[in-house]
Amino acid sequence: MKHLSDIFNQALQENCAATAPFNLYEPVDYLLQLGGKRVRPILCLIGCELFDDDVQKAISPAIGIEYFHNFTLAHDDIMDAAPLRRGMATMHTKYDLNTAILSGDVMFAKSYQFMCQVDSSILAPVLKTFNQTAIEVCEGQQYDMDFETIEVTDVSVEDYLKMIELKTAVLIAASLKIGALVGGASANEAQSLYEFGRLAGIAFQLQDDILDTYGTAENFGKQVGGDIIQNKKTYLLLEAVNLTDKKNMKKILDCLSLPLNQKERKVNEIKKIFNSLGVKQKAEKLMESYYERACNHLDATSLNIEKKSSLLAFIDYLMKRNS
Amino acid sequence: MKHLSDIFNQALQENCAATAPFNLYEPVDYLLQLGGKRVRPILCLIGCELFDDDVQKAISPAIGIEYFHNFTLAHDDIMDAAPLRRGMATMHTKYDLNTAILSGDVMFAKSYQFMCQVDSSILAPVLKTFNQTAIEVCEGQQYDMDFETIEVTDVSVEDYLKMIELKTAVLIAASLKIGALVGGASANEAQSLYEFGRLAGIAFQLQDDILDTYGTAENFGKQVGGDIIQNKKTYLLLEAVNLTDKKNMKKILDCLSLPLNQKERKVNEIKKIFNSLGVKQKAEKLMESYYERACNHLDATSLNIEKKSSLLAFIDYLMKRNS
Repeated sequence: MKHLSDIFNQALQENCAATAPFNLYEPVDYLLQLGGKRVRPILCLIGCELFDDDVQKAISPAIGIEYFHNFTLAHDDIMDAAPLRRGMATMHTKYDLNTAILSGDVMFAKSYQFMCQVDSSILAPVLKTFNQTAIEVCEGQQYDMDFETIEVTDVSVEDYLKMIELKTAVLIAASLKIGALVGGASANEAQSLYEFGRLAGIAFQLQDDILDTYGTAENFGKQVGGDIIQNKKTYLLLEAVNLTDKKNMKKILDCLSLPLNQKERKVNEIKKIFNSLGVKQKAEKLMESYYERACNHLDATSLNIEKKSSLLAFIDYLMKRNS
Repeated sequence: MKHLSDIFNQALQENCAATAPFNLYEPVDYLLQLGGKRVRPILCLIGCELFDDDVQKAISPAIGIEYFHNFTLAHDDIMDAAPLRRGMATMHTKYDLNTAILSGDVMFAKSYQFMCQVDSSILAPVLKTFNQTAIEVCEGQQYDMDFETIEVTDVSVEDYLKMIELKTAVLIAASLKIGALVGGASANEAQSLYEFGRLAGIAFQLQDDILDTYGTAENFGKQVGGDIIQNKKTYLLLEAVNLTDKKNMKKILDCLSLPLNQKERKVNEIKKIFNSLGVKQKAEKLMESYYERACNHLDATSLNIEKKSSLLAFIDYLMKRNS
């Protein structure tokens, strides 16, 4: 997907040139230029390319999606009090709170301006998808914040799966669907790609949960064990709580309350419990089943094997299956 | 305009019923139900009624505009550290910072969902106007914040007029224009209404500046003298700085640095300077000239005198000319 990544990054670069008011737009450029894999806009371009060789017409909505995604990052980083993003200062850290709010807001507004540059014949379905997605991503962030203050025993696996669907999977899905609509897909085919993206997006997040605990510095990239240290209510923890007996339940809760200076012990103890309950295998099985269901939706399209393979290759790259 | 206000408030009420996640949507209802004059959605309904008796079709975009306006209030109140709005706790005060950010964000997203319910034949021009307006309102807020840290001698009257145009006038203008488009106005007539709204919106803000200093508790409603106490760079102050000589300039700057426990003296001294320079008369003249230019754009439409009068009656009510 190197060529799509290059096309996108060049187009984004051309759209980054802080205009007045400088204090509003310079931080926008800063955040957009922190980089990242550009997963969502590339999925938008792939979605288009599945139906039309001319990906140029998907550039604008792809930029809109990246603006939207970065708007959510700017505001999420405030809410999570995160000092760093991709190893660099987050917007509210580099500038200030007000900047991160307002420059975030204008990115959201601009995301719509880019999105509206699609052909007027598909404007209504594109926006219907984008509106719903924007709302759902906010809902997902709310559930994620809600979970932080709820006891681990009061969050169900279903609640968690719903949360990651809203917070992560629907934007993956919408990126593919909007690209497909731009490329001329029928409503049905675009919806099949949405379902593929939604289910693959959930699988992708489950894989991320697994790698956070069982990955290596090489195939994960972030600090392994971070979720455990932060008491994050991931699938692994929630399923462990689900499966465990009373005695081990107390042990889990004791581990969760270990202080920060016992990080290593905490990670090891929790992993031991996960292992004894076979939680990793359950997570892998669930992830595989989501991925399989995703592929069923892809098979339901009229796309030829070559087209499907190119999409699956990118998904595999994201799922780190190539490593 | 009582009937339009009633129609709107009932429709808004029907759309307020916090769904899950409760912590996201309950604050949205709280803010929307703080009331206010509903100026912008009513202008949207009026814009429609000028061209079509059926205002029902403008309800959805009118709700979208009110959601958008309230999103900006939620975020502006954070940035201005304002504890109260319409005598009630602001969102970040009643709930918390994160709530005001995220519930604000979802209001912005929902504003687009409402806006997109217009007929698909006018979706593109409606969104073009709405997108540009949303971006400009953010820019206006940025200029307003920038002005706070700039010396009063370094902000020009032109800078100020541009700021109030972006922060206040363009949303007034867009509300009328979008309503007109929904009502079936031609592109030219809709644009004339936009220009009417833009210029009347600037006049409206100038009137607000005048009343803030020269109004009474009765015809203003807010604390008279508030702008002077807070050193706000209003038209009156900037024009005074413009007109004054060196000696009085020092006097102005001395007054601006008076401490909060000398509020009354500060207001009186600054008013004395304003009076000696004829700043109020200049402001009134400028306001009148904006209003006249606004009316020229209204005259350029094909609307009959009755239609024009109903719009002007509402504007007069807003400008408090009826009191």
